[in-house]
Amino acid sequence: MSSSSSATGSKGISVIKSSLIDPDGGSLVDLVVPEKERASKRAEAEALPKLRVGQIDLEWVHVISEGWASPLRGFMREDEYLQCLHFNSMRLGDGTFVNMSLPIVLAIGDKDKEKIGTSSDVSLVGPQGDLVAILRRVQIYKHNKEERIARTWGTTAPGLPYVEEVITPAGNWLIGGDLEVIQPIKYNDGLDHYRLSPRELRKEFDKRQADAVFAFQLRNPVHNGHALLMNDTRKRLLEMGYKNPILLLHPLGGYTKADDVPLDVRMEQHSKVLEDGVLDPETTIVSIFPSPMHYAGPTEVQWHAKARINAGANFYIVGRDPAGMSHPTEKRDLYDPDHGKKVLSMAPGLEKLNILPFRVAAYDMVEKKMAFFDPSRAKDFLFISGTKMRTFARSGENPPDGFMCPGGWEVLVNYYKSLQAEETSQPPAVVPA
Amino acid sequence: MSSSSSATGSKGISVIKSSLIDPDGGSLVDLVVPEKERASKRAEAEALPKLRVGQIDLEWVHVISEGWASPLRGFMREDEYLQCLHFNSMRLGDGTFVNMSLPIVLAIGDKDKEKIGTSSDVSLVGPQGDLVAILRRVQIYKHNKEERIARTWGTTAPGLPYVEEVITPAGNWLIGGDLEVIQPIKYNDGLDHYRLSPRELRKEFDKRQADAVFAFQLRNPVHNGHALLMNDTRKRLLEMGYKNPILLLHPLGGYTKADDVPLDVRMEQHSKVLEDGVLDPETTIVSIFPSPMHYAGPTEVQWHAKARINAGANFYIVGRDPAGMSHPTEKRDLYDPDHGKKVLSMAPGLEKLNILPFRVAAYDMVEKKMAFFDPSRAKDFLFISGTKMRTFARSGENPPDGFMCPGGWEVLVNYYKSLQAEETSQPPAVVPA
Repeated sequence: MSSSSSATGSKGISVIKSSLIDPDGGSLVDLVVPEKERASKRAEAEALPKLRVGQIDLEWVHVISEGWASPLRGFMREDEYLQCLHFNSMRLGDGTFVNMSLPIVLAIGDKDKEKIGTSSDVSLVGPQGDLVAILRRVQIYKHNKEERIARTWGTTAPGLPYVEEVITPAGNWLIGGDLEVIQPIKYNDGLDHYRLSPRELRKEFDKRQADAVFAFQLRNPVHNGHALLMNDTRKRLLEMGYKNPILLLHPLGGYTKADDVPLDVRMEQHSKVLEDGVLDPETTIVSIFPSPMHYAGPTEVQWHAKARINAGANFYIVGRDPAGMSHPTEKRDLYDPDHGKKVLSMAPGLEKLNILPFRVAAYDMVEKKMAFFDPSRAKDFLFISGTKMRTFARSGENPPDGFMCPGGWEVLVNYYKSLQAEETSQPPAVVPA
Repeated sequence: MSSSSSATGSKGISVIKSSLIDPDGGSLVDLVVPEKERASKRAEAEALPKLRVGQIDLEWVHVISEGWASPLRGFMREDEYLQCLHFNSMRLGDGTFVNMSLPIVLAIGDKDKEKIGTSSDVSLVGPQGDLVAILRRVQIYKHNKEERIARTWGTTAPGLPYVEEVITPAGNWLIGGDLEVIQPIKYNDGLDHYRLSPRELRKEFDKRQADAVFAFQLRNPVHNGHALLMNDTRKRLLEMGYKNPILLLHPLGGYTKADDVPLDVRMEQHSKVLEDGVLDPETTIVSIFPSPMHYAGPTEVQWHAKARINAGANFYIVGRDPAGMSHPTEKRDLYDPDHGKKVLSMAPGLEKLNILPFRVAAYDMVEKKMAFFDPSRAKDFLFISGTKMRTFARSGENPPDGFMCPGGWEVLVNYYKSLQAEETSQPPAVVPA
């Protein structure tokens, strides 16, 4: 494989290399209150002004509490928010920059602002009414939604999923402060054992005596093109002299848009991929990244990489159009498919990352498998987009042999069948005559 | 004066201090071809594919060529553009960051792109048909206007002056490359002697043996509140131990929106302010900053400060809502009035800047002069906004005594009278019956 070829095309994927194994060392933020202090914190929280937070806010509490956003210790105050919006990074006291590309903020309305008054601390109450956390030394500042959206997404077009579900209905104030989380966030959905914290992941890498960890972020089923890239990355790391490279297969587990495959189905699909031997369970850790998804392309890919570095990964695999989507109102990709990789490679606070370019993977109709694209016999290759894959699964049609392991494919087909069953069991929509 | 008070209110102004007198030293970019090479460059340019550029493009050529945007050596290529949009800064080879908040780009259309073909160099032809510059090692990349606007202004609302006049009518491609400017850019408007380059300004500061230079950016007439701040800054610098602080009164001379006071009127007004002794000509240099205006608030104020540091200023005075304007479609300021100062104080590449807060200046109705606001007798103070000032001048009504020196005020009144004369001499608009 040529190492000078640049990654393009629908399966073009690059590996970004960091020379840091453990960038934050022991300084990784951990904001979960130790067990012996929980009762007293709960009593204290009970007496504070209470803020009811939603499911996605809770996902952010989870993310912050475990140190994915380290050194961030809570929801952003205005100084952090402004640096994030304008610079995608924050300056630390020692003059160095850490990457911080997505605003991690908590919105409140006028009534809540009034209720808080001059209180320095507030408690956060989860969707089920449980006391979740204390927010300390709070600062309340204006939530200019238009500016936040424009600077984060590079568009204000209607139809951005996170905007419509989270920002538009939110209040006109943001409240920042340091978090103390009363007990670890759990979802009780049968998948909590997959939700390893950055600390737990680091321990696991140590236990396996990994000398290189390469992370693969995804929110889609794994097909054999992905697997080829992951296996090839491992091969290249071995060639570079690493003795025990470990793959962190790290599906995003927080909020995703309605037409993405749900987390439980994806986790089942990923299990099959390992069971079917497409990825080697000995050298792969499957875990859930608890962050919500913004679909903010080049801005968001920085967050995806930064969080995985915090978890101990030192190689980050970046694909074409990472965290991208179609423009919500125009017939084009929202972002230039190459911008994610370019922006990531230049991002402040991620300086130690280096790109290892990969060739494009596509379906080789002669060899009947996913393979690296060979331009000398271009006509033998078929590019299968995510949309096409979903169309196959929805229609029950099989994709070409070798596109995905049969066990994984079956999970998808069953999911789409169950969707159709649900749809046909719905009463027909009432149409006015 | 309390140095811990924070600047707010309509005349709240802060001084940002840099510890650097001459940050770029001898490395300040100068892209104007030496006189003896001009004939041969012109001949070379004549044979290259030609790009016709507009007046505002020419203003940017001027800005780049003299080193205001140093170390930028031409119109941005995609890597510079992406760093500017996402990070408001660019990383240099040595790992340090320079501030670069506004995209300094040249747009072209499909036809020009086709004409350039695979040519590595192109020549730029000015609005009068004269050969202006050669652009070397060009790179052409997509001009995603929506993304550029959203990330630069934090809104995509219709009615942003620079967007409507410059970006919307521009082509769908950007062309970056290194500039070689064939001869210094001149305007022949009787004001060229005011257009000192950063090099010329530095020489002038040396000649005057300045040990501190404080820059005041403006695009409005100077009233006595401004003058109070500038004179007070000088006093404070003297108190800090500087022996010869020099004021750089530095009106912006490039593109401004239609309802701003035109440059020639402002220069005449500024002259009167010095003639009337409101500012001391011995310790003041009046010069024109050739940049066009974006009205991009916190994003643009970084550019305004960075360019003046390049010209040798080491103190930068920043007011309330710098480079701000009203929201084009909503009844509010486009930017939070405090964000400009905050963002500037945290901006990458401007780390050496420190804020020296100023109290608010307003019209003291008892003392009958502009004075620092005294909250213990708040009712004695009158805040006169720019809009109110223009209303006074338009109606021929005098502002309170001591608001502006009489000579300066007369310039404004005459300007608005001439506007009204023009308006009344226009034929009435035809209204369909």
